[in-house]
Amino acid sequence: MTLLVAMTGWHVEDWRERFAALLPELPVVTLGEPFDRRAVHYVASWKHPEGSLAGLPNLAAIFSLGAGVDHIFADSRLPEVPIARVVDPDLTARMSEYVVLHCLMHLRQQRRYDRQQLAKSWDDDRHQPAARSVRVGIMGLGELGLDAARKLQIIGFDVAGWSRSPKDVDGLVTFAGSDGMLAFLGRTDILVCLLPLTPDTRGMLNADLFAALAQNGRLGGPFLINAGRGGLQVEADILAALDAGTLKGAALDVFESEPLPADSPLWSHPSVTVTPHNAAMSEPEAIATLIAAQIRRLQAGEPLEHMVDPTRGY
Amino acid sequence: MTLLVAMTGWHVEDWRERFAALLPELPVVTLGEPFDRRAVHYVASWKHPEGSLAGLPNLAAIFSLGAGVDHIFADSRLPEVPIARVVDPDLTARMSEYVVLHCLMHLRQQRRYDRQQLAKSWDDDRHQPAARSVRVGIMGLGELGLDAARKLQIIGFDVAGWSRSPKDVDGLVTFAGSDGMLAFLGRTDILVCLLPLTPDTRGMLNADLFAALAQNGRLGGPFLINAGRGGLQVEADILAALDAGTLKGAALDVFESEPLPADSPLWSHPSVTVTPHNAAMSEPEAIATLIAAQIRRLQAGEPLEHMVDPTRGY
Repeated sequence: MTLLVAMTGWHVEDWRERFAALLPELPVVTLGEPFDRRAVHYVASWKHPEGSLAGLPNLAAIFSLGAGVDHIFADSRLPEVPIARVVDPDLTARMSEYVVLHCLMHLRQQRRYDRQQLAKSWDDDRHQPAARSVRVGIMGLGELGLDAARKLQIIGFDVAGWSRSPKDVDGLVTFAGSDGMLAFLGRTDILVCLLPLTPDTRGMLNADLFAALAQNGRLGGPFLINAGRGGLQVEADILAALDAGTLKGAALDVFESEPLPADSPLWSHPSVTVTPHNAAMSEPEAIATLIAAQIRRLQAGEPLEHMVDPTRGY
Repeated sequence: MTLLVAMTGWHVEDWRERFAALLPELPVVTLGEPFDRRAVHYVASWKHPEGSLAGLPNLAAIFSLGAGVDHIFADSRLPEVPIARVVDPDLTARMSEYVVLHCLMHLRQQRRYDRQQLAKSWDDDRHQPAARSVRVGIMGLGELGLDAARKLQIIGFDVAGWSRSPKDVDGLVTFAGSDGMLAFLGRTDILVCLLPLTPDTRGMLNADLFAALAQNGRLGGPFLINAGRGGLQVEADILAALDAGTLKGAALDVFESEPLPADSPLWSHPSVTVTPHNAAMSEPEAIATLIAAQIRRLQAGEPLEHMVDPTRGY
């Protein structure tokens, strides 16, 4: 039995060493070397090359090295085997740090005060709306969305959530599906997008959606936070909505094309805060440990945790 | 029985109307008009003029219109009557919004990313330390400090508290008095000051204190958040510590002189975020309602809540 580490963009040798240290009994191979394709039982993938997992007759499971699995489903020749994502409590906590930070920056009008500091002068209106008077709407009620919702509620925000299929969550107002979408958006002052990227969600953050957000809120217009995937958003629509006032501002950690191209108007738009897709980076050691535990689970005949539904793509 | 509203800097007529609406049976007078000094049983004060409360023979209580009472003890001719502060859950929540925001801005290196956004270029290091690896120290464990501590813990920070006298708080590491100060400062990466201003605390945030903060933390140097009172800080020492690297940054809502003078170097220091003393402003209606309830309590023969200890000054 062999573990194949199949990735692009990351240092594969670092990952080989991590897995070798955690699973000393299991040979670890990479795509850049010759290996016996029949021996490969497990794959750890981060953006593996198209088709590189085809022709592995004894493959038992694919493990995503991140919370997202869209990079795996991007492969049109993906073998039909169980796929599991990483659910890392540390990654969840970091995503909530990012979400709470940007909800609070918007609530407390930090960019307005930044401008006043630059001008060395306070304007006369020092009033701040309270968190309880500001409605946050979270799209995506998986591990990430639920953790962020709970923390935002404790800070005081008026939080609701939306998910594709109905979810009953203690103490949280929830909406579901396309039927619930308009009511959800209509009560949302700050939209937090933590959706997975699937064919259904691609381009979902567009002009139509922005137009349905609450325009009567305490913050003078709705605010968008996207810490999911860049493919969820239509950047031309974000810019148009900001200029039209349909959106008051945005905090974006992800982009249609990454790294964000130097000529993107998002860099310099006064109402946009951008970060380099680092809202929630895991420690590689934590991810490797979680995947090693999954492999041990399979070897002990136990079921995989955090399996992905290939018909939904997440 | 009469309520005297004694204030400077605020619109006294607004307050007269609020109290008159809440306590229709109680005449309300202000310093700017003739009134019978023997009739005054209650005073609502915000920075009342020196000596203006002397010669009120039937005064039963003074109510501060804010959480702080230093403005009351600033009066050298203050009558010896019970003094109560306002404890407004809404004000507490707002203070915690401010504290959590600035702890997260520092944790997530927001100013560094602001500079990168301005330069339209990300540097190579996208790593972020996790909240659990960053130690917040809260000075002042009253209503405000304890609420902020709880919320910071839920976000994930490693929180400890310091207070003048020992406090036993479930789930919080606490230090007390001058004996506990050095150990407290030595494990603090982000110092949050929510102390009252008293003769003991004036000028406490000075070079000696900054030098005792942790220099070995994950954020490259300690950070100061002062949302208490400007008199707590020595601004020349803050600036010198920032330039020497003893402090990595500061978020200041209060200043030695307010509003912050146009020639203060704090406005333009790249590592300082200033706000116009609006970290935690209450709704006037909420304050008036809380004070009206206190007056009803006295009239029903019940004890005052949230009384101040004049020997400690808070």
